[in-house]
Amino acid sequence: MRRFVIGSARNLIESSRQKYQFERSILSSPYRFLSSSPAADSPSSSSSSSSTMAHPVSLNTINPKVIECEYAVRGEIVTLAQKLQEEIQTKPDAHPFEEILYCNIGNPQSLGQQPITFFREVLALCDHPAILDKSETQGLFSADSIERAWQILDQIPGRATGAYSHSQGIKGLRDTIAAGIEARDGFPADPNDIFLTDGASPAVHMMMQLLIRSEKDGILCPIPQYPLYSASIALHGGTLVPYYLDEATGWGLEVSELKKQLETSRSKGITVRALVVINPGNPTGQVLAEENQKAIVEFCKQEGLVLLADEVYQENVYVPEKKFHSFKKVSRSMGYGEKDIALVSFQSVSKGYYGECGKRGGYMEVTGFGADVREQIYKVASVNLCSNISGQILASLVMSPPKVGDESYESYSAERDGILSSLARRAKTLEDAFSKLEGVTCNKAEGAMYLFPRIDLPEKAIKAAEAAKKAPDAYYCQRLLAATGIVFVPGSGFGQVSSWHLAF
Amino acid sequence: MRRFVIGSARNLIESSRQKYQFERSILSSPYRFLSSSPAADSPSSSSSSSSTMAHPVSLNTINPKVIECEYAVRGEIVTLAQKLQEEIQTKPDAHPFEEILYCNIGNPQSLGQQPITFFREVLALCDHPAILDKSETQGLFSADSIERAWQILDQIPGRATGAYSHSQGIKGLRDTIAAGIEARDGFPADPNDIFLTDGASPAVHMMMQLLIRSEKDGILCPIPQYPLYSASIALHGGTLVPYYLDEATGWGLEVSELKKQLETSRSKGITVRALVVINPGNPTGQVLAEENQKAIVEFCKQEGLVLLADEVYQENVYVPEKKFHSFKKVSRSMGYGEKDIALVSFQSVSKGYYGECGKRGGYMEVTGFGADVREQIYKVASVNLCSNISGQILASLVMSPPKVGDESYESYSAERDGILSSLARRAKTLEDAFSKLEGVTCNKAEGAMYLFPRIDLPEKAIKAAEAAKKAPDAYYCQRLLAATGIVFVPGSGFGQVSSWHLAF
Repeated sequence: MRRFVIGSARNLIESSRQKYQFERSILSSPYRFLSSSPAADSPSSSSSSSSTMAHPVSLNTINPKVIECEYAVRGEIVTLAQKLQEEIQTKPDAHPFEEILYCNIGNPQSLGQQPITFFREVLALCDHPAILDKSETQGLFSADSIERAWQILDQIPGRATGAYSHSQGIKGLRDTIAAGIEARDGFPADPNDIFLTDGASPAVHMMMQLLIRSEKDGILCPIPQYPLYSASIALHGGTLVPYYLDEATGWGLEVSELKKQLETSRSKGITVRALVVINPGNPTGQVLAEENQKAIVEFCKQEGLVLLADEVYQENVYVPEKKFHSFKKVSRSMGYGEKDIALVSFQSVSKGYYGECGKRGGYMEVTGFGADVREQIYKVASVNLCSNISGQILASLVMSPPKVGDESYESYSAERDGILSSLARRAKTLEDAFSKLEGVTCNKAEGAMYLFPRIDLPEKAIKAAEAAKKAPDAYYCQRLLAATGIVFVPGSGFGQVSSWHLAF
Repeated sequence: MRRFVIGSARNLIESSRQKYQFERSILSSPYRFLSSSPAADSPSSSSSSSSTMAHPVSLNTINPKVIECEYAVRGEIVTLAQKLQEEIQTKPDAHPFEEILYCNIGNPQSLGQQPITFFREVLALCDHPAILDKSETQGLFSADSIERAWQILDQIPGRATGAYSHSQGIKGLRDTIAAGIEARDGFPADPNDIFLTDGASPAVHMMMQLLIRSEKDGILCPIPQYPLYSASIALHGGTLVPYYLDEATGWGLEVSELKKQLETSRSKGITVRALVVINPGNPTGQVLAEENQKAIVEFCKQEGLVLLADEVYQENVYVPEKKFHSFKKVSRSMGYGEKDIALVSFQSVSKGYYGECGKRGGYMEVTGFGADVREQIYKVASVNLCSNISGQILASLVMSPPKVGDESYESYSAERDGILSSLARRAKTLEDAFSKLEGVTCNKAEGAMYLFPRIDLPEKAIKAAEAAKKAPDAYYCQRLLAATGIVFVPGSGFGQVSSWHLAF
């Protein structure tokens, strides 16, 4: 059966190439959660280290939290893939494939997705404003991109795109983003609540840094989960409190499960500070129903948890019966305001139809925190001075794309719809193809950029994996890579425990 | 005397405006060093926090390391300045000045310095490669910028500037940077030693995260120091071990002082992990002599310390008798290789003649670490996926600018020399002007972008500061801001203890 899956997978992926993205990780083994290495905060080993040594740094003397941290979407399987790639380059016949297909991470433009023209026009003009007045520029750039570049430059003091900005990001761009959030949600958004960041990841780190005091502080995270969360919690010395998504109901999120895990961890002396919800799901692709979201908001309010809402796939919903609702909209529609719930929403320019991963743009909208705590978040943001200005500009563009009547509107919407329908089509193609494979069960592709099919492995394969000291699905992914050149990350890398999966 | 200084300062700064940059901070008081809040690692407060509270996060329940951290270049004085700025906007007559002059941080383009045209041409073309083939582009962009953009795009897999790159940065760009380092130093550089980052600050954080295990780990830092170091050490829960620069010898760095402080901290049970050297100095502007650097390298080798070399001002040397030598060149010229000394060199696109602060580009060159530890650094880099691609490209450009014979060479070198000679001229103008002021003693402006003049304050002013519960120089800076609109950061923000200073 394994051979069958491998052979089919190659065809399937080839036909869907440059099309559908994936994201993944080998991550930590489940027993790491909650136990959270007692060594991590013990200074005992440090006092024994002595001076006058040739090599001042070794694995025994670095921060154990760094060793603890794992991040499988760039982990062992990717390192192996890079090695194979080098071998192919020097010896094309070395392996039974000609190239490596990286399906380990959602990186659309690396697989051929083209950027949105309007966005790139504006970025180029802001990078080199000296050409804005030149006549040739009219022939090369759309009129509304030129107009938008002027607007943006006028929002930047001295039109200096090479200057550090306000530590939360340029005020005018935050105004635009707040207006975009208002238009999306139908509820007010305050530009002072926006913190622009170099992608969503640094924003997540900032919140973990703020909330985690020691290994006694816990963060509720979905399992399977995007391993940024486990990595960040490990780096900051906290404890990941897992809650398990229900594969049987399309990776459903049950509030009863949240309650159970919260109580279990409290009984172990863990103070749970926050709940991470990824919607649409990564790596599980499910889109939460509004009623479900209301129950989650209510749970956070009652239990005094910060709601950390990873909403970076808000534009990636592929089924007509599901819609994205931001947690801010849901909580405001329940009548809950600043005083009722502490909520952080993460957004990124890397996902959606834009897929601008390399630009490292994103923001978090921080609501429901007191002014004194907000000041502390600002201080941490200010230590890195500001996020990159191109990423800031792009974040404003994705929240305020061309509108009906703008010169670029038609080409922009054609590009956007082309990408989104292509993503939806390929999601469905892969979902159907996986579902037809023997020994494979696949969830419905509702949103995000991922599928998380379950593989039934024969006893013999599991024994071989044990002998190789690998999780069975990690072993499977290594064999799949060696046989086909396709880089998948095993479900165990996302913390999945009771069954074996591939993550696309 | 204070009035005299204020009046003269305004004139002096006005005439030097858009010209000379400064960087500074209110920072922590000196008694914070070495004592490093015992609360920082104590989980005792966490267990008392309970559930079912309306506000889950307060100053009492956030990470105390965040509260501990201070970063004065964006601190209290800047917040006050922003408040005054708002008041001027609504009521132009509110204060005896029309605008705020931000001299708190080295941010040249915010003060009117223009970016290097060639760099911006290449960035714009890489942002919007679709125009590379168009005939109008020839009229708008220099031929070598078009050629360079093609070269760079060819180094990026799929020419995808919107894709995540290798976590250390695009390999081809690292090749270019390594070649630039080789050309600068005359010693080999390995592209695999280069980690591209969103400016130098995240690189410094990465090293602190790697090296600091607990408050028992110490990092030797100059005083006065750029407060990024104290902020980062506080956030990572370590101990800043101060060594004092000698104002009497132009802020000289004495190895005997390093030894004394190392021994003192060891006697207190601190394991010193690394030595930070900022050369040219920030905020003190001194350029180290090669012999001095050799003694520092020898000290680190003998004591088993990592040498963290902040070399972001390597292009900013203003006196003919001083030259910048990288610590890597110095250590290699002493015959010391990978096995002898662990050395990290930080570089940034924010300083030099380029001053591209908003682009957030930079790199660290990591040498003398074992493969296993390097793997851990790579892992931490990979958790944020990669630094922004525009910043990566710019880092390659500053290490490989146009050469003699290139179409842009003349305009490029005219722009570069114009900026550098203007910086040098203004440094000298300010140095001379400060030296003439009564009650002010000013160091020589050798390099970097800063002066650190000493102010003698009368007893009455010191008493008034005490009454206001401020450090006397912090009090002075607040009064200066209120009277003139000029934002200086007090020397106490850089940890300076025995005398009062302004930092420009």
